[in-house]
Amino acid sequence: MNGAEAALRTLLASGVDTCFANPGTSEMQFVSALDRVQGMRSVLCLSEIVATGCADGYARMTGQAAATLLHCGPGFANGVANLHNARRARTPMVNLVGDHATWHRENDPPLASDVEGFARAASDWVRTIRSVEQVGADTAAAVQAARSAPGRIATLIAPADMAWSDGAEVAPALTPDAPRLVPGGRIDEVAGVLRKREPTLLLLSGTALSARGLVAAERIRRVTGAELMCPAQVARAARGRNAPRVNRMPFSIDAALEALKRFRHIVLCAAKPPAAFFAYPGKPGLLAPPDCGMHVLADIEDDTVDALERVADALSAPMSIDMKSSRTAAEPSRGPASSEAIAQTLTARLPEHAIVVDDAVSTGRGFFPLTFDAAPHDWIQVTGGSIGFALPAAAGAALGSPGRKVVCIQGDGGGQYSLPALWTQARERLDVVNVILSNRAYKVLFGEMAGVGATAGPAARRLMELNDPQLDWVKLAEGYSVEAARADTMERFDDIFVSALARPGPMLIELVM
Amino acid sequence: MNGAEAALRTLLASGVDTCFANPGTSEMQFVSALDRVQGMRSVLCLSEIVATGCADGYARMTGQAAATLLHCGPGFANGVANLHNARRARTPMVNLVGDHATWHRENDPPLASDVEGFARAASDWVRTIRSVEQVGADTAAAVQAARSAPGRIATLIAPADMAWSDGAEVAPALTPDAPRLVPGGRIDEVAGVLRKREPTLLLLSGTALSARGLVAAERIRRVTGAELMCPAQVARAARGRNAPRVNRMPFSIDAALEALKRFRHIVLCAAKPPAAFFAYPGKPGLLAPPDCGMHVLADIEDDTVDALERVADALSAPMSIDMKSSRTAAEPSRGPASSEAIAQTLTARLPEHAIVVDDAVSTGRGFFPLTFDAAPHDWIQVTGGSIGFALPAAAGAALGSPGRKVVCIQGDGGGQYSLPALWTQARERLDVVNVILSNRAYKVLFGEMAGVGATAGPAARRLMELNDPQLDWVKLAEGYSVEAARADTMERFDDIFVSALARPGPMLIELVM
Repeated sequence: MNGAEAALRTLLASGVDTCFANPGTSEMQFVSALDRVQGMRSVLCLSEIVATGCADGYARMTGQAAATLLHCGPGFANGVANLHNARRARTPMVNLVGDHATWHRENDPPLASDVEGFARAASDWVRTIRSVEQVGADTAAAVQAARSAPGRIATLIAPADMAWSDGAEVAPALTPDAPRLVPGGRIDEVAGVLRKREPTLLLLSGTALSARGLVAAERIRRVTGAELMCPAQVARAARGRNAPRVNRMPFSIDAALEALKRFRHIVLCAAKPPAAFFAYPGKPGLLAPPDCGMHVLADIEDDTVDALERVADALSAPMSIDMKSSRTAAEPSRGPASSEAIAQTLTARLPEHAIVVDDAVSTGRGFFPLTFDAAPHDWIQVTGGSIGFALPAAAGAALGSPGRKVVCIQGDGGGQYSLPALWTQARERLDVVNVILSNRAYKVLFGEMAGVGATAGPAARRLMELNDPQLDWVKLAEGYSVEAARADTMERFDDIFVSALARPGPMLIELVM
Repeated sequence: MNGAEAALRTLLASGVDTCFANPGTSEMQFVSALDRVQGMRSVLCLSEIVATGCADGYARMTGQAAATLLHCGPGFANGVANLHNARRARTPMVNLVGDHATWHRENDPPLASDVEGFARAASDWVRTIRSVEQVGADTAAAVQAARSAPGRIATLIAPADMAWSDGAEVAPALTPDAPRLVPGGRIDEVAGVLRKREPTLLLLSGTALSARGLVAAERIRRVTGAELMCPAQVARAARGRNAPRVNRMPFSIDAALEALKRFRHIVLCAAKPPAAFFAYPGKPGLLAPPDCGMHVLADIEDDTVDALERVADALSAPMSIDMKSSRTAAEPSRGPASSEAIAQTLTARLPEHAIVVDDAVSTGRGFFPLTFDAAPHDWIQVTGGSIGFALPAAAGAALGSPGRKVVCIQGDGGGQYSLPALWTQARERLDVVNVILSNRAYKVLFGEMAGVGATAGPAARRLMELNDPQLDWVKLAEGYSVEAARADTMERFDDIFVSALARPGPMLIELVM
């Protein structure tokens, strides 16, 4: 068996059965082996930032690691932005990266590059296959690394001769690291802090934002008065009218400082000490007040849900919470588009078990509290600040979640980094409604310019505005065979949105802001 | 003066007056400073692979280093593929990469990444600014590195506080390394080899492919019978009916081995020993016959033109060459599109001093010999094998070459990596005729699959074909306000091509293969 076939069969044996691919010559043996290895689903992506974003969305929704198949150093680098987002989300992912045959690198052919250097800068685990006998074992080790709690970016570099040579063997799955049990002393300490009933924040991230984690957090809130919050970006959160209400930390540093200033204690539940997204002159980098106690209940590698439940039990919190919404059903909004108007229509129209994929870094900031009363849904976000996440992540989420509607909310600036994701959506007939927030600017930057103490004259504005020429998102989508329409009002948006949700396959709505 | 302003003024003082930008928060001070620093032209690109490709095309045509302005590690990584091409072309380029403020990195905000790691893997020179007093000196050193012969990728990382702090000073330009003079012993040695009149190849790259370099090579050819050839990818070549006829080394390894097997000597003129683009099982990595003598006339850092002229003089070659073409003007081709048909129409229609930007890795392989009789023109190619080069490089070439028509020949697969370059072409009203070779496949891979000894079944073919759905390039172009048309025959292509060449601004032709 050649190395390529052994690698694919080992991926399958380790539970990885989906591969997002943009291959080249050095990956041809892997591509060829797809016809001999039944059960590996391969999805073609037209650029690598699409492949890595798809794998991220897929893994966040299924909990299963996906593979990517990428071409040499530059191909890997093309995928780094969404690898960065995935790494920040602690997504499990296995990148299989082809490279030149071992004996050809010394000849310095045109595509030779420091692939290990790129891989190390973007991954938690990197290995280059050194012998064909090791292909299976190395592949199993990559999956093990990727699946170790809570998830890692594992990059396995496969020189072409490791793929084409015979003598490889399939390796059995290796057991990944399970989430660590939080020691009892930490449970007691946090319970003790909470019993003081001083102003305390539970900062929830990772699995604390799962349905079970949120129930445990809500139990604690009800008996202690502690507040619940999540970071400004979340990997995935269970939300909607049946879920506890957890708001995001504000993106704006002044608003974040204001939101945190009243707390005497912050309990970190798979979250890190809250930090500003960017630094600004004369402002602090950490957001908590200086005298605020910082208590780690669970690190991201820990079993956070278990820890929250043990704290709730230690506080004798009632087991069940009744989250029935008191609100009547929302009406879709009317008039011009705005952040509030979009959130209102989402609340009215999101179908049960929808998946919202959110890369709306300016317009979307206020969406969380305004959509608490929507039907139960999951929400996933760009976690690492690399815009261009939503179109591919929505494709991956849809592929991993048949029967669920995906609503992709993408700012127009960010959408340009990974536009060919629409092609994969069309090719795989994915149930994604793409909403492009067309404000014709890198709108986030206008606030950021002021934040760093600078001003924007005509030359600066020309680097922040996208209105010369305007992007025609309807034509762009149709270029990829994705049906599309433009909405200038929320009435029109609602009409299109409702009809898009009612039918299968992808659709794109350009919502002019 | 703050650091951002000092950096921009130092760039100008060092002769860098054009910047291709895709900025974020950490670059806002640079963006703001554009309104205070007269003379720096800034060009917005919608993704970083566009910015780096533009800078490459600009520098190849002007000989001047351009700057890029990129956002943190992921933004830099998004631009790596075309940085790789630029590095292989030995293009001078200065990347100014913003990053978090020095004191904020320890807080590990979402966009924090190993920006130095990415930069080192993709650059010849990397420095992170450590104090605001050093901004000017570091910027001048970056330009010096970039401009040192023949050209380097220099990446300067600017933490945000280095940009916003006051106390920076403009630094004067530093002298870059000039091309090295080739020692007389090497001239004599190569002249001696050539005097033997054994089968000898002059392998020409770098400045050997400039108009002056080619004249010198042609003088040598005429008195010695040596043959002229260039690598399979060239950074820039002067071509057309007045230029010596230099063919590319074949991309196919079997054809390349065949083309080289008759030579007893290869004289390397800024070229490296010819190597296969990829390795293939059972085939050599180096292409020259084992008993072929390999003689270095000039390394890429050397003054290759001077060396060729001295060899020609040593051989008493006549000073002037008459390159008048014996061929009559070609007629544009008719019928279905093919590699030969496209070359014929190019030969008939290329305007004087056109710039051809070539990222047609399968269809374009045979273009060189078939276009020897075109009007005088320059030809630049994807040099590092990272497809997605032509659309942005054409934009940069056009921006740097007012009054010259740019013909961009882009394969459809490659065009998807950097599609938003069309927006920059429209925004800057650039004279680019984009020809998309729409064969609806990664066609190069079909040959490569066989080359590595593998076969393509239905699953494999699905990763190599782009026909489900088909890309509608006319709509994609119109989405960026670039006028576009589709041609199914060479007659129709010729009609559109002629009209596109006759009017200003960008145009896109989807040529269905």
